Amino acid sequence: MTYCCGVLLKEGMVLVTDTRTNAGVDNISTYRKLHTVQGEDRFIMLATAGNLSTTQAALSELTARPIEGGPLTLHDVADLFSAAQLVGDTMAASRKRVAEAVGDSTPSDATILFGGQIRGQPMRFFLIYGQGNFIECAPDTPFLQAGETKYGKPILIRSISFDCELYEALKIVLVSFDSTLRSNLAVGLPLDLVVLRRDALEPELVHRIEVDEPYFHDLGAAWSAALRETLRALPGVPYGRG
Amino acid sequence: MTYCCGVLLKEGMVLVTDTRTNAGVDNISTYRKLHTVQGEDRFIMLATAGNLSTTQAALSELTARPIEGGPLTLHDVADLFSAAQLVGDTMAASRKRVAEAVGDSTPSDATILFGGQIRGQPMRFFLIYGQGNFIECAPDTPFLQAGETKYGKPILIRSISFDCELYEALKIVLVSFDSTLRSNLAVGLPLDLVVLRRDALEPELVHRIEVDEPYFHDLGAAWSAALRETLRALPGVPYGRG
Repeated sequence: MTYCCGVLLKEGMVLVTDTRTNAGVDNISTYRKLHTVQGEDRFIMLATAGNLSTTQAALSELTARPIEGGPLTLHDVADLFSAAQLVGDTMAASRKRVAEAVGDSTPSDATILFGGQIRGQPMRFFLIYGQGNFIECAPDTPFLQAGETKYGKPILIRSISFDCELYEALKIVLVSFDSTLRSNLAVGLPLDLVVLRRDALEPELVHRIEVDEPYFHDLGAAWSAALRETLRALPGVPYGRG
Repeated sequence: MTYCCGVLLKEGMVLVTDTRTNAGVDNISTYRKLHTVQGEDRFIMLATAGNLSTTQAALSELTARPIEGGPLTLHDVADLFSAAQLVGDTMAASRKRVAEAVGDSTPSDATILFGGQIRGQPMRFFLIYGQGNFIECAPDTPFLQAGETKYGKPILIRSISFDCELYEALKIVLVSFDSTLRSNLAVGLPLDLVVLRRDALEPELVHRIEVDEPYFHDLGAAWSAALRETLRALPGVPYGRG
């Protein structure tokens, strides 16, 4: 499993991923799932969930340095919609190769969160399915998730809006990760994160939250304590002896 | 889908279920999933999730009035461990019949949350799988869930402890339902709930939260508002420009 979550807000984008991969609970590893493509005119980020051989092969092709007369990559694709199509097509092909190799023995499916900005164009953010089709993030629901999405979703639904300040949104996404980490062993620290301000074309923050980072630990503890207080203060049930 | 959640605490038990059943989003209905067996010496409750034909058939057998020389039911089984075995065996048999009838076309699986108390014996609470095996609730994790469990789990993990007051626990479980209702259309109002105080042998509260009940509506709204305030008050991220 994996948890990836990104938000596209008025001020910009935040993307966060865990780093745990597993082939059973007795075989876990740490792999970077948050990848970036930086150029003079662009900053693009990708977060991958699902079969690691599917996503790694797709990423190698997508992020390769362009060669004269060679295939398009994320370094030279003209706009983000074309880029989303390229990511979808590349992943669908990679997934097909893996599926043919492993048969039914191993799930070959994968998902990619993909977004960023190219100079002079709007910032865009997509969720790309293993079959190659995709959906785009929009202000009404300004977040996209991949992997183990359910535990961390209620806090996003209640708290994230398009007008949210970037670092406030990052904090909320980290709380969503804390909820997920407490519920599913297949999601694990460290976490990788990128903050990209609109029109900046280079990241304002690239950070890895290590296992022993005090802020993240304290955030989870403070959230649990505050939640218990908040619950206590809610009106009691009006029936029975409550 | 369905969401059922129960807690077994120092003071007693709370069990809550939704009432939505569906065969696709274009075919939804309301069915009671919370059932009780009351006798002079016992109060037993069951919450069912999964294939409705599997659980209804099992329930009919389990809650039938005992006949002289007839099979054991929940009205006359001697203790709750034997009762859990009876529920498991009955459901496994019912599931097998349904599976044979429908083949692979429809999932036949189901789960039952089952608990209560018989005079002179401890209060006990079980989660019974469709195969007939079961696990028992214990103080370290004093809740059990069935159906759509993930959206509502983080709040339980952070907030419910064995020492929790009964109606405080009910309030927390209702917040867990609110989170689930906002995320999955296949879980729906009304909600049925029972509160059983330890050694009382009869329920202290049996209630249906209807679609238009102000308390439940206000609880969800108050929780969302309080959550946003609580999030705002959490320490901001110490990196970037946050």
